[in-house]
Amino acid sequence: MEMTDLANAVIAGDRRALARAITRVESARADHRAEAVDLVAQARAAGRQALRIGLSGTPGVGKSTFIEAFGMMLVAQGLRVAVLAVDPSSARSGGSILGDKTRMERLSRDPAAFIRPSPSQAQMGGVARRTREAVALCEAAGFDVVLVETVGVGQSETVVAEICDLFILLLAPAGGDELQGVKRGIMEMADLILVNKADGDLKPAAQRTRADYAGALHLLRRRPQDPEGFPKALCVSAIEDSGLTEAWADMQRLAGWRKANGHWQSRRAHQARHWFGEEVRQGLLSVLDREPAKGSMAALGARVEAGDLSPEAAATQMLALLGRA
Amino acid sequence: MEMTDLANAVIAGDRRALARAITRVESARADHRAEAVDLVAQARAAGRQALRIGLSGTPGVGKSTFIEAFGMMLVAQGLRVAVLAVDPSSARSGGSILGDKTRMERLSRDPAAFIRPSPSQAQMGGVARRTREAVALCEAAGFDVVLVETVGVGQSETVVAEICDLFILLLAPAGGDELQGVKRGIMEMADLILVNKADGDLKPAAQRTRADYAGALHLLRRRPQDPEGFPKALCVSAIEDSGLTEAWADMQRLAGWRKANGHWQSRRAHQARHWFGEEVRQGLLSVLDREPAKGSMAALGARVEAGDLSPEAAATQMLALLGRA
Repeated sequence: MEMTDLANAVIAGDRRALARAITRVESARADHRAEAVDLVAQARAAGRQALRIGLSGTPGVGKSTFIEAFGMMLVAQGLRVAVLAVDPSSARSGGSILGDKTRMERLSRDPAAFIRPSPSQAQMGGVARRTREAVALCEAAGFDVVLVETVGVGQSETVVAEICDLFILLLAPAGGDELQGVKRGIMEMADLILVNKADGDLKPAAQRTRADYAGALHLLRRRPQDPEGFPKALCVSAIEDSGLTEAWADMQRLAGWRKANGHWQSRRAHQARHWFGEEVRQGLLSVLDREPAKGSMAALGARVEAGDLSPEAAATQMLALLGRA
Repeated sequence: MEMTDLANAVIAGDRRALARAITRVESARADHRAEAVDLVAQARAAGRQALRIGLSGTPGVGKSTFIEAFGMMLVAQGLRVAVLAVDPSSARSGGSILGDKTRMERLSRDPAAFIRPSPSQAQMGGVARRTREAVALCEAAGFDVVLVETVGVGQSETVVAEICDLFILLLAPAGGDELQGVKRGIMEMADLILVNKADGDLKPAAQRTRADYAGALHLLRRRPQDPEGFPKALCVSAIEDSGLTEAWADMQRLAGWRKANGHWQSRRAHQARHWFGEEVRQGLLSVLDREPAKGSMAALGARVEAGDLSPEAAATQMLALLGRA
């Protein structure tokens, strides 16, 4: 299928075409890459925008259950929902967070929803580009909400925050001493902290955890792009379906406020500029992954390891070989 | 002064020459850079090796007081000690950790010691290279121990660990709930955890903190490059001069074990290869900081921000301009 036909099918809302288009942007083949750039350009030209929500949470907080319940609630309101996963660790574990679709059984079967697991063998640079392009394809396909989920591993939250309009941190109830387990940087990125499992025996612990995080958020400086009261911590229960409506209302309120105040558009503009820089840097460095540079790097690296050559002298030689002395 | 003369003066142990040589490796000027590479190559050719000790600790743990007491103990044993700082945040704060030499009054006046603060306006990439080269210069100048200190900011610990033979984490006494405040990655890099201020009222708290960290270290897998019992947590008091002899004995034991088992040399070999790769990557990317690429990046970046051009299309144009389509 020609890229134009594929792009048109995506824009017409053909789910199989969307799946095929995402497979194309995931491909590492050079000819596929050129096609992917073409495809994404045509998708962007449709000019559609979804609400992009980044969702981070470590394993065990109930991410799949939350996405199932939250997604079904949005679908019940007539919204179309796409779910993408960013999982840089899948290369190691061999599996992906969303690989087990049975954990989101209802949502994965709903015609208004589209769920796409993380590709295996992905590196962070590749994951960032693939996710960004998959988001653009989902937007072109007319989805109203694109959820991008990530586990709290390495740089993945930063990547997701640089792709999304809102960033949500999902937590499980815990003792107060676990507060510090959340990296400060992630707290600072979060627009909304949702304490999941606020049901049954865990409800009091969830409420305490919420209060702890609300206190911690209060200590962080309010950001100019936020209305009064944000960032905010709420209790939710995915299995009891409670708090989800409130959380969604807050997300809409925040998004609306940012749109009205110009922060929405300027955030997207800054993100685009950031990714432009990343693409250029990745492109410059990619020469090192191809022959003959790859072989020279290995040969010079071996001499540096053996102590025959200093790191600086070897680097000078390598840059000269690349015509960049 | 010619670089050869300067290198010879450094190797002869001339402290003013060493200070001037470090200033040269810190310079951002292109002609100075070529001279610095020459200088470091000559310094390395002297074939001297010091024990390189990385020391990390957040503000308030008593780093300066510890370095003063620990350094004076080494000097009293007839050893020559150099202290270098890695402080990527100094660009922002305008000051450097070791800027206030009065906090190490005795050590800074001792002829067997050499203290060099972090340069201002340093970026992480530049800091890493400058520190690596300054360490090589100190080794050439005949110092037996080179202490590289860093505050726990961003990537600086990883940089220091990639430069040093041993990595020490300095902590203050604290409640057990603060254990998680230390990033897991830093715990995993530490060969020795020293709980400072184990004196007076704080002694019981220091002992508890030591036990907490000893327990946490026990949970981490023992590394093949370590003898039985390492990594280890100890109490020290810089103001009472207690525990320092024991800490130094452990450092020597660990270093001796690694040397006898070949881990020492293989670690230095891996570090050299790592820095070779970093130098090449920095060199490739440095084109973006110079005209005409810098101007093109700004112009294309502005169009991406304005929405005239997608990040991918702009990156393709930029890479074409760089002859790397």
